[in-house]
Formats: sequence, C-alpha cells, structure tokens
Amino acid sequence: MQDTASPATTGPGATTPYPPTERTVPTRAKERASYDRELVHSILDETYLCHLGFVRDGAPVVLPTMFGRVGEHLYVHGSTGSRPLRNTRAAADPGLPVCLTVTHVDALVLARSAFHHSLNYRSVVVHGTAVAVTDPEERRIALDAIVEQAVPGRSRDSRPANTKELAATAVIRLDLDEVSAKVRTGGPDDEPEDITLPHWTGIVPLTRGYAQPVPADDLDPSITVPDYLHAL
Amino acid sequence: MQDTASPATTGPGATTPYPPTERTVPTRAKERASYDRELVHSILDETYLCHLGFVRDGAPVVLPTMFGRVGEHLYVHGSTGSRPLRNTRAAADPGLPVCLTVTHVDALVLARSAFHHSLNYRSVVVHGTAVAVTDPEERRIALDAIVEQAVPGRSRDSRPANTKELAATAVIRLDLDEVSAKVRTGGPDDEPEDITLPHWTGIVPLTRGYAQPVPADDLDPSITVPDYLHAL
Repeated sequence: MQDTASPATTGPGATTPYPPTERTVPTRAKERASYDRELVHSILDETYLCHLGFVRDGAPVVLPTMFGRVGEHLYVHGSTGSRPLRNTRAAADPGLPVCLTVTHVDALVLARSAFHHSLNYRSVVVHGTAVAVTDPEERRIALDAIVEQAVPGRSRDSRPANTKELAATAVIRLDLDEVSAKVRTGGPDDEPEDITLPHWTGIVPLTRGYAQPVPADDLDPSITVPDYLHAL
Repeated sequence: MQDTASPATTGPGATTPYPPTERTVPTRAKERASYDRELVHSILDETYLCHLGFVRDGAPVVLPTMFGRVGEHLYVHGSTGSRPLRNTRAAADPGLPVCLTVTHVDALVLARSAFHHSLNYRSVVVHGTAVAVTDPEERRIALDAIVEQAVPGRSRDSRPANTKELAATAVIRLDLDEVSAKVRTGGPDDEPEDITLPHWTGIVPLTRGYAQPVPADDLDPSITVPDYLHAL
C-alpha cells in the first residue's frame, strides 16, 4: 500500500499547473477555476482545517479534520478506530476514495438583487485515493507536518509521539494530482437595470486572527509564550 | 418529490434531542457528541457556509456552499446546471443522499505532547436525502432564508428574484432528522508524566469578525450603510 516512489515529488515542478480533469472543470463559473500550483498551495497553507469526504455504505460522509501539506502530499491522521481510517486499512490495496476541501471566506458580497448575493472566497478541492502511510519515517514526517500546518515551529517544541501513541494513530496520504482552486474576488455583479435601486451594495470583508494565548493552569509560570506563537 | 407534510415541523419540539443513529454515534471521543436541538441550531446559525458532500460516479465530492435554516429544514441553492442540483433533478423521487457539515474552530490546543495537540471546535454533521424544492412559496422562503442566514435583515432590502432568475435557480431541502453536534472545549489533556516537560502549553483562541463594509463603486453616495450591517 505504501507508495514510496511518489510521482508527485518526481513529477512536474512547482510552476506546472495541475492538469484539469473531467471532475475538476466546473460546470459553471468556469472563470473562477484555477489549476495554478502556487495558488493551490497558498490556499491550503493558510489553514490546517479541511473537510474530508468519503463514502460509507453508499452514502457521503463529510468530517472536519486537520491536515498537513508536504510538497505535493497531504496528510491526515486520526485514531486507528475512526471510520475513514479504519476503512482505509480495510480497503488495503486500493485505498479510500476521498475528496478533501479547504475554504476561506473573504467577504460577503451584497448585490442590489437577492440573486446576485455571493461570497468572495478561495477554495481548493482535491479528488483522489487516500492510502495508509505505514513507513515509520514518513509517518513521523506526516505527524510533524500536521502540527506545523497549524503552528509553524511547534513540532520541535513538543514531545514527539511515543511507540504507544504511534500505534494508536492512523495516517493517510492524499497526493495533489487531481486538484482545482476556485476564487471569487471583487464587488457585486448587479444587472444594469438594477443600478438605480435604493439598496446599499458592496462587500463586507471578514477578519480572522488569534487572541492572546491562554496558558494551561498547570503550566510552570517561568515558561513564557514562545516566539512562534507571537508570529501567528 | 415535494414533501409538504414535513415530519420535522409537526414532530418533536425544540427541546427534544435528535435521536442518535448508527451513523451519528461516533466511534471515538463519544463524550464530545451531542444531539441537543438548541445546540445544533446555534452552531448552524453562527454561519452561512457549509460543506456539502454527495456521491458522484461512486466517488465523494465535497463543495463549500451557502445554506439557510428554517426551523428543522436546511436549504441550499445553486445553478440548475450545477452538479449536485442536476443530480437531484435527475434522481427525481428518491432525492440525493448528502452529508452537510458546519464547523467552527474556536482555539488551537497546544499540549506538551504532539499527540495531544487538538482544536477546540463546534461542528454539526447532518446526514440525509436532499429533495428538490418545487413549490413556489417554499422556494421564496428558502431563497430569503439563505440571504438572511448570512445577513439578517438583508432579504427585505434587496430586489427579490424575478421569473428568469427563479428559473435558473435550483433549491434543495435537507431535513434535520439525522443530526449530531460535536464540541471540544477546554485546555490540553496532557499525560501526567508530561507535566514537567519544558514546553509552553495552553490554548490560542481564534477571533472572527467583520471589517468596515466597502460600498460598490457605482453606489449612490447618499445611500448609507444600513443598520443591519452595523449589527454584524
């Protein structure tokens, strides 16, 4: 099941776009779609949370989960008892068909017509087959990457997983092969005949950030907030 | 296909929890699961963005989309040409099996061990079969609800959809029957033997908000920012 000779790292460079496929070409708003590798990476790297879809008993399941990106690989971890990861192990060779989606909403778009209300957003949708990662070294890299995706610098400032914890952790990998980004920017697209309507129109940008870190009750007070947290 | 006698509105009241089912009982972290109706509603109503999963050619697809809640109904709209909604029409009577997921991340949880790193979050997962909404009155209610979900008060301050726009818009409904919430709060759960490790530990709360509204270039300057936007 382990794919050591990964085509994604030996294949095209960072400037080659992802090849569009039947399922990554949208049926509408085609002008919003992009296959640009750097754009895809930047959208993925702005977060650590994805929505992972898989099929269970013929029905879709969508679960929020953390991920980490290492080059053209995405890693997701979980308990060996959790459903998607259990499925991966059961499915053995073919892996688990998944769809991994990441979305940032940047603004509410308020048009004069209800119909043209929209969002400014950036999303990435990855289709593919997730495979179980069994190589101990790749598992270490993956687990570090998931921590680093949320807090760069943190993996070197925490205790690595021990043997017992590693045994309880399943890791799956999804390669960035069949990928598209979708981006909407700009103001409302009102119909020309609506321009004189008396409704306020424009966008409301969203803000996102972090508040002051809150130390755990049992933290030794001599341990101060590390620089990598200030950098968030 | 239209289900006018909805069991969700004639059934149990707001204080009755959603009945757990095989797929809404988690295989792990059971203590985080909840079937409380008010909690589910509050998580849904804090946003307007969901991730909608469906199955296409046997593979999962997860797309970000706006939704609106009216009581125990969730509504999603889209172009009549978009894939999930096209599928709904094609599927006619049985509807489209979907999984609709909403997630709020409240804090990064930094434990002393990499293994116990986590997120504080609140999520809702809805399983069910989405049906096409064809009744004109219910379609109006649904479209208003989707606008109101993002900006309460806005549906009355914009031009309603006209006949042509309504014809281009598909609306689907998913009833809140098979639903669970999952919530993690609090600080890190470190192992007792890790307490003396020299790593900072605690949580980093996330902040979310709105910046000043930005009027469209062609907005009549005498039209000021409405009160319902200040209320955001």
